[in-house]
Amino acid sequence: MPQSIFEPVYKEIFPFWNEISEEDKKFICQNSHAVTYSKGKNIHDGNECSGVILVRSGSLRLYMMSDEGKDITLYRLHNGDMCMLSASCVLQTITFDVFIDAEEDSKCYVINGSAFAAISQCHPSIKIFALETAVSRFSDVMWVMQQILFMSMDKRLAIFLSDESARTGSDTITLTHEQIARYMGSAREVVSRMLKYFSNEGIVEVSRKGIKILDKKRLRKLAL
Amino acid sequence: MPQSIFEPVYKEIFPFWNEISEEDKKFICQNSHAVTYSKGKNIHDGNECSGVILVRSGSLRLYMMSDEGKDITLYRLHNGDMCMLSASCVLQTITFDVFIDAEEDSKCYVINGSAFAAISQCHPSIKIFALETAVSRFSDVMWVMQQILFMSMDKRLAIFLSDESARTGSDTITLTHEQIARYMGSAREVVSRMLKYFSNEGIVEVSRKGIKILDKKRLRKLAL
Repeated sequence: MPQSIFEPVYKEIFPFWNEISEEDKKFICQNSHAVTYSKGKNIHDGNECSGVILVRSGSLRLYMMSDEGKDITLYRLHNGDMCMLSASCVLQTITFDVFIDAEEDSKCYVINGSAFAAISQCHPSIKIFALETAVSRFSDVMWVMQQILFMSMDKRLAIFLSDESARTGSDTITLTHEQIARYMGSAREVVSRMLKYFSNEGIVEVSRKGIKILDKKRLRKLAL
Repeated sequence: MPQSIFEPVYKEIFPFWNEISEEDKKFICQNSHAVTYSKGKNIHDGNECSGVILVRSGSLRLYMMSDEGKDITLYRLHNGDMCMLSASCVLQTITFDVFIDAEEDSKCYVINGSAFAAISQCHPSIKIFALETAVSRFSDVMWVMQQILFMSMDKRLAIFLSDESARTGSDTITLTHEQIARYMGSAREVVSRMLKYFSNEGIVEVSRKGIKILDKKRLRKLAL
């Protein structure tokens, strides 16, 4: 049966799976396909409907892009994460353009957008799942925006880490997030979250031993 | 009966109204109150749960604010508009802080947040309505962000209008949006939408005769 590879995964991922009929399950599976995107491949480009993407392995990067090609990472998707913003035909109220690239070779399951839209019309629980998936990313995106727009927290943290590294002559900064926050006149949560963002970007590595600078060039660029 | 003032309005505004029982209708009405906010009043301040706000008259401004008090207008709410972002207890996936002020004396109906959350748990259609209301604003917010972050379209348009006004010696710019877009190397829709944003902010007045500059001081500040 064609649905056999998808079914065990969907059963785990979709909170609505046990509420829908066998026929509907089959419909979703028949409209699914498994894809492997090679590293660097652009998967979604603006406002088309690329379907609902479920990441099985690897990493996808979701970003906004300006006409001049400047881009800002909004968030990344890893194993088990789901992308609804790529399925503009499911959520018609989403009218802005995002781009998605595979950052590593990534195995994904993709559900056809119009099939998913059709089935979500019949099942409120599917619709709720789709909307909640989108809304939960709204907060992530707002956070990134707020930091960049207002506080230039990315810049301020980059400056702090560069200065501290130069001062101590070491690539590893051994201060706690709490201490960094106090030095910068910010809050611990803000520093932790921005460090996580830097770490996802491959700029630093955060461990118990401290913050290790991995990409000095990008850190310096951010500090400009 | 206490629900009498709310019922006719809710019947019109809420797509789910006819699907719920009389008892549930009564519950929503009993947890509603009518408020008039005076011009300039701060209604919602960060991440508290101020309830679901329905605007009956006047105008509310929703904005983000930095620690230094700098703010960015995300959008405005007028008669018939509904604010879900003020009800963080209804949509728990929304974790960012917004602020809401009354820009004019504004009559609103406010539904208690936890009451609305409780009833939306029982009715998928209410939950879908709440989520869709939030998601539809996501696109507005992303648009504002994108323009400001990337293109500095606010700045570029402000510069263009100031220069054009100085050049012609007139406060009214008689070019079409299409023409302005061509001069600026942008798209007509982008120019029209940004002019609407300026016009909502009281910086310009857009009419058939052209674009009239109302607030030169703010336009000059934006152009810096």
